Amino acid sequence: MANFKGHALPGSFFLVFGLWWSIKYPLTYLNGRIKGKRSSNKFHKRLELIEGVMKVVFTLIGMLAEQFVPDGPHLHLVSGDHGWVKLMNWQHTTMYFFYGLSGVVDILTYFPLNFPQGLDRLSLALAVFIEGLLFYYHVHNRPPLDQHIHSLLLIAIFGGSISIMIEVFLRDNIVLEMFRSSLAILQGTWFWQIGFVLYPLGKAPEWDQSDHENIMFITMCFCWHYAVSLIIISVNYGLVYW
Amino acid sequence: MANFKGHALPGSFFLVFGLWWSIKYPLTYLNGRIKGKRSSNKFHKRLELIEGVMKVVFTLIGMLAEQFVPDGPHLHLVSGDHGWVKLMNWQHTTMYFFYGLSGVVDILTYFPLNFPQGLDRLSLALAVFIEGLLFYYHVHNRPPLDQHIHSLLLIAIFGGSISIMIEVFLRDNIVLEMFRSSLAILQGTWFWQIGFVLYPLGKAPEWDQSDHENIMFITMCFCWHYAVSLIIISVNYGLVYW
Amino acid sequence: MANFKGHALPGSFFLVFGLWWSIKYPLTYLNGRIKGKRSSNKFHKRLELIEGVMKVVFTLIGMLAEQFVPDGPHLHLVSGDHGWVKLMNWQHTTMYFFYGLSGVVDILTYFPLNFPQGLDRLSLALAVFIEGLLFYYHVHNRPPLDQHIHSLLLIAIFGGSISIMIEVFLRDNIVLEMFRSSLAILQGTWFWQIGFVLYPLGKAPEWDQSDHENIMFITMCFCWHYAVSLIIISVNYGLVYW
Amino acid sequence: MANFKGHALPGSFFLVFGLWWSIKYPLTYLNGRIKGKRSSNKFHKRLELIEGVMKVVFTLIGMLAEQFVPDGPHLHLVSGDHGWVKLMNWQHTTMYFFYGLSGVVDILTYFPLNFPQGLDRLSLALAVFIEGLLFYYHVHNRPPLDQHIHSLLLIAIFGGSISIMIEVFLRDNIVLEMFRSSLAILQGTWFWQIGFVLYPLGKAPEWDQSDHENIMFITMCFCWHYAVSLIIISVNYGLVYW
Repeated sequence: MANFKGHALPGSFFLVFGLWWSIKYPLTYLNGRIKGKRSSNKFHKRLELIEGVMKVVFTLIGMLAEQFVPDGPHLHLVSGDHGWVKLMNWQHTTMYFFYGLSGVVDILTYFPLNFPQGLDRLSLALAVFIEGLLFYYHVHNRPPLDQHIHSLLLIAIFGGSISIMIEVFLRDNIVLEMFRSSLAILQGTWFWQIGFVLYPLGKAPEWDQSDHENIMFITMCFCWHYAVSLIIISVNYGLVYW
Repeated sequence: MANFKGHALPGSFFLVFGLWWSIKYPLTYLNGRIKGKRSSNKFHKRLELIEGVMKVVFTLIGMLAEQFVPDGPHLHLVSGDHGWVKLMNWQHTTMYFFYGLSGVVDILTYFPLNFPQGLDRLSLALAVFIEGLLFYYHVHNRPPLDQHIHSLLLIAIFGGSISIMIEVFLRDNIVLEMFRSSLAILQGTWFWQIGFVLYPLGKAPEWDQSDHENIMFITMCFCWHYAVSLIIISVNYGLVYW
Repeated sequence: MANFKGHALPGSFFLVFGLWWSIKYPLTYLNGRIKGKRSSNKFHKRLELIEGVMKVVFTLIGMLAEQFVPDGPHLHLVSGDHGWVKLMNWQHTTMYFFYGLSGVVDILTYFPLNFPQGLDRLSLALAVFIEGLLFYYHVHNRPPLDQHIHSLLLIAIFGGSISIMIEVFLRDNIVLEMFRSSLAILQGTWFWQIGFVLYPLGKAPEWDQSDHENIMFITMCFCWHYAVSLIIISVNYGLVYW
Repeated sequence: MANFKGHALPGSFFLVFGLWWSIKYPLTYLNGRIKGKRSSNKFHKRLELIEGVMKVVFTLIGMLAEQFVPDGPHLHLVSGDHGWVKLMNWQHTTMYFFYGLSGVVDILTYFPLNFPQGLDRLSLALAVFIEGLLFYYHVHNRPPLDQHIHSLLLIAIFGGSISIMIEVFLRDNIVLEMFRSSLAILQGTWFWQIGFVLYPLGKAPEWDQSDHENIMFITMCFCWHYAVSLIIISVNYGLVYW
């Protein structure tokens, strides 16, 4: 995964989910204001089911890809001489697994099993937290710019995790849901940005990874990404409104 | 902006908003206790609209100033030999932009667009957070006193951001609003203080930036600023009450 | 306690409590949905009493064991030449004491003493916090892997403490209760894992305590433990449901 | 204040307030359960007034003492050759000032001024936070044991500040009030402990300030202090109940 595609792929996933949420939540919110409480809404519930199924399918593909790409671990964890095999791929498999788990809980919540509401949000918050935890210990002993660009990602990740955790208690809060969408889009575009910075495409020049100016620019760039994310969300809200 | 004026200007903005809030909120609060719930109050809503417009105007001026002052970047980000142009000015432009965005949301909230309440508070909290984030990475590799005086500012900034975030859920809470006002005034006067310490005016002697005694004094001085801020707020509350 | 058994024993305690909670809470929750509010339920209250008594008994045994094992301090704290006697055992005695205190509060809450509800949760949260505090200062000056494996434990501990603290205000919230159960199971299995890593059994090879790969694996392993813990909880919920 | 008395004095203040609260709150709580909502209770309100007056009187005495003891600054802040005068005493004066301010707000809350409820809790939380802030920057460049013993104090201080901050929103919550009492008692006894450790009385031997064993003992000792504090609170609750 330590290449451009390895960052573009998860980035695209987050982007898709972020954009999808930024349409779904205003839609159900505005619908709800017209027709009454939306949690009892059948259409809304079916959307959540489809979302859960999508999550499970996506993460299954992701896990299989991580394991069975040509240079993947092929489910081997320990090689003969007691060295770990492709820990990176295993870490990514772990991340996918937790998002998959969150998808399974989404599906279970749909069926009338008396499954406690809020568990779907909790499991999503945990998946995001696990992603953050693995990333946090991921970047030790790297050049300053690499560390910095990943630690900015952690802001989006842990911010998202906390915000989703609050949704366990304040369900169907449109502000929290739009905040979550914006952070998902931010994560998505930022993954792309990391790819562009660390693995410049084509003839683009390499970035000097210990230049303080570059670090200052990247911090600001992160803010711009978030500004764009906020604007996208606003535009989507406007479109849904019309 | 690395001079006295560059700190006095934003300081004055925060001071104006802090003082304005310390009058507005007690006013609407005490009005509300007489005439009933204030959120439905037309006068109160119009005030919020004006505030939003003011924010947008101020930040537009700020952004243009940052870009087009004689030694500004004039919207150039990259110079020919792949160096960044005037990153400081760009960072400040970014900060202004988020405050401007918060102003736009304030305005949108005014119109009957079914715009979810609480988004105005969220966007303000985000603007404050972005300011803190940029400042946090601003002061690396500076002398101890410079770092310390800015890290104290971060307490006011992040404290304010958290407090405004809570307002998303506890809207129209007078205690939170007065707390926010006090932190805005604190930020305002502290910007002035930073200006005085780092860029002494006239014949005032330079501060020894690595003296431990100076750092201890500055910590205490920060508390005094807050004490003054609290007293100003109390006096304003008293004036409004009479 | 610096051996395999010393980690397996507390691990088993946490595991037992975690598993017990993962059955008790779904049971009372599903019962409550059929028969009405469960806090007024006599059976549920008696369970809490038994739990409190068990806690007191377990921790008494634990404290006595820590003090009177052959190489324990036998209640001596200071030896003649002003050296501390067996601080480790004293620290563990302290941890047990706070869990015992929490058991006592559980018992007191049962009797109709007008004892404020929520104190039982607060005292449990404090016991967990004290455990975390002692562990936090426990691992200074140790090899990297040892520190890392304990700091991961701290995530489970402090996460649990915060979650229980929230239960003071949101009592009988099934999501929080299941979260707590999952963290208790995680703590339990992780104690076992620490034992296996730091004190390999039989002919198992020693772990290289400063290998970065090992640290990366352990981080991921922690996530797997939590995944297993979540699956156990789900299965138990399912069993209770049928 | 860098002597035994200088720690015993504030310790006694906190101890007195902690003990007083541990009697007052159970009293008003149990009364409230018999006679109805206590916030409307006149007796309870008068108690709060007296408490406010006591705070103001105590802190005035404290401030005057800090300024006008023989080796105090006598209100001089800057000496001729641009050195700061007795910053320690000024810092303590600052701490007293914020507690005094909290006392003033207590008094204002008593009178029917439409003063927003919750401001008294906020101002107390701020006073505690300021105390913590000043202590945090107080102990840089000290021996390890000295730093450690003060950083443990910070746990009690910031824990208390957060807990009181929550009381702004959850007023008259007996669990929070008893938690606050316990932390105040902990602070009180811990100040005494700091005095004993750093300035041994009479013929007691000096503590080796860089011995790791001592640091481990002190951590545990802090837990014991809290255990004692919790037991005192429970006994007082029991006494009030009978």
